[in-house]
Amino acid sequence: MLYEISEKVIKLENEGKKIIKFNLGDPDQPTSIEIIEAAYEAMKKGETKYSSAAGEKKLRETLSEIHGVSADNIVITAGSKWAIFAAMYLLLKKGENVIIPTPHWTAYDLTAKSLGAEIKLLRTELESDWKIDLEKLEKLIDDKTRLIILNNPGNPTSKVIDEKVIEKIVNIADDKKITILSDEVYADISFAKTKSVLDFSPNHLTVKSFSKTFAMTGWRVGYIIANKELVEKIVKLNQITLTNVPIFIQEGALKALELRHEIIHKIREDYRRRADLACKILSKTDLKFSKPEAPFYLFPKQEGLDSEKFAFDLLDKGVAIAPGTAFGNYKEYFRLALTVPDDEVELGLKIISEAFK
Amino acid sequence: MLYEISEKVIKLENEGKKIIKFNLGDPDQPTSIEIIEAAYEAMKKGETKYSSAAGEKKLRETLSEIHGVSADNIVITAGSKWAIFAAMYLLLKKGENVIIPTPHWTAYDLTAKSLGAEIKLLRTELESDWKIDLEKLEKLIDDKTRLIILNNPGNPTSKVIDEKVIEKIVNIADDKKITILSDEVYADISFAKTKSVLDFSPNHLTVKSFSKTFAMTGWRVGYIIANKELVEKIVKLNQITLTNVPIFIQEGALKALELRHEIIHKIREDYRRRADLACKILSKTDLKFSKPEAPFYLFPKQEGLDSEKFAFDLLDKGVAIAPGTAFGNYKEYFRLALTVPDDEVELGLKIISEAFK
Repeated sequence: MLYEISEKVIKLENEGKKIIKFNLGDPDQPTSIEIIEAAYEAMKKGETKYSSAAGEKKLRETLSEIHGVSADNIVITAGSKWAIFAAMYLLLKKGENVIIPTPHWTAYDLTAKSLGAEIKLLRTELESDWKIDLEKLEKLIDDKTRLIILNNPGNPTSKVIDEKVIEKIVNIADDKKITILSDEVYADISFAKTKSVLDFSPNHLTVKSFSKTFAMTGWRVGYIIANKELVEKIVKLNQITLTNVPIFIQEGALKALELRHEIIHKIREDYRRRADLACKILSKTDLKFSKPEAPFYLFPKQEGLDSEKFAFDLLDKGVAIAPGTAFGNYKEYFRLALTVPDDEVELGLKIISEAFK
Repeated sequence: MLYEISEKVIKLENEGKKIIKFNLGDPDQPTSIEIIEAAYEAMKKGETKYSSAAGEKKLRETLSEIHGVSADNIVITAGSKWAIFAAMYLLLKKGENVIIPTPHWTAYDLTAKSLGAEIKLLRTELESDWKIDLEKLEKLIDDKTRLIILNNPGNPTSKVIDEKVIEKIVNIADDKKITILSDEVYADISFAKTKSVLDFSPNHLTVKSFSKTFAMTGWRVGYIIANKELVEKIVKLNQITLTNVPIFIQEGALKALELRHEIIHKIREDYRRRADLACKILSKTDLKFSKPEAPFYLFPKQEGLDSEKFAFDLLDKGVAIAPGTAFGNYKEYFRLALTVPDDEVELGLKIISEAFK
């Protein structure tokens, strides 16, 4: 469905129409010029050869200092998606299952399906502030459960998981010897205090990315923090798949880390301002939604809404959104990615508001 | 074993020793500055966002013209290795098998093993000029055979497969409804006329790369030419794994294609000169080998040789090679990658020659 919307957006744009694109979570900010220059300098220095399948030593060491883990617990991956695929490929066999709280990013279940694994969805609700029900979680676990996926903060809800909830999930997982795969790609730019599974136990997996934090989506660089055994397996998988993330891209990532306080501050404030603006406009409608605690989504609900039909109708008015059905059984919801300039946020949300007056 | 050698090389170099590295197939030439500048310009223009999982339209169209196929038959991949993994992941199920002629590049069988597939090795011999025995091939095929891998020209033999042999293998595969996965990453810079499986049938898969042809190993960009059905599946796999090869890297690749006649001519001549030099020096020893028909390997044999022991002994003399056991049951062989400057080729081969006097 997301794909169909994207295709129609491209078609309309080719016809010369202007579309406000709330449908894709791709930051509108450019990558900082210092990062680009660092990559360019590395290319010119001849950093264009094969390299370590684990990632560049200096980048891993810098990340190890930031996260307070050993560099041996880190593998550089071609984006967080590759880290998620690699972990699931190595830990989840055909016939085993993975628990995924919903609403969820679609790559989790597509990957599980691709691997022939069973998917157990754990529904969360706007009305309960998107809280994971721990009793329901425990009931879903059986002897074929290998993974629990957490997305913290979450796409599409922009909800930060309460630290007590994380702690309890970690306890359940440790108790049942299940691995948590915690996708924390929005954590470094979240508006609310965000704890990692890493803060509670070293047994689980944390996936991070430069994409959102540094507006580097198209660079394809992320990493996973894991135990040494899994790190070694991912390195071996990298050796027969990607070989390595280009060194010059890793040099760009290293420069991003060097400038991280400055870049993160700016990016976070951009999204906080847009989130405030969006909440202000939408609060004048009947739409229900939780206030974003992180960039960059809003996931409003209108009772009785057919969000797929709504998405296509709205496209004719020049606004693209993602229907809630792209994130599970959430037909009455839609997702807005606030990855467009403020004036477009304002105009686009006014058009949406009109539809709910 | 290749890994152990590499590790020891790094250790020795850290101790300040100079090692002539014939062990790795990573070109010593730098990537052309025009390619670097094209990537840099693309970065500065903001080509740092998510993009098509199939690859950039312009790059696919240029490749489609070069190969005389539709752009819909091409997917841009993160190196040829990713193309090979993706094809095997999608076509080869647990319990099915793949036929791999030997000596072979180790990623083929590691990938098959990772997928739980059975590997059927088809031995070729220096004494028969590395020719694939078609009768033996037919006998290996059973009802669980899904893939035949060809590597043309081959690593480690640098042998071009005779076009009549390719035609016959294609006929056998078509007849038995088996897919050929033809890894042709050395074809564009080969010294001898090299036919592709594409020249005989549209049913099979051709894997290509910018790595060797344009000295772009560390950029991680290659492509696969396949039927539309598999192309669509690989695009879907890209969507849940890599997303896309960075656009600025694809812009570099596009520039490489623009300058291809000039770059390929220079790179081919570099390797031809080194191959001639190496053959001249080694012909004065008792080593047996076939003359390379493509860059950049030599695979000499010495009866009774223990190539692993030889590799470690040679390291103490400052020369790194790959033992034949890294490519199958070829203990009496070793592989030389002529990816070092001419003066090092000369010096390194003199040291090797001493060992066989």
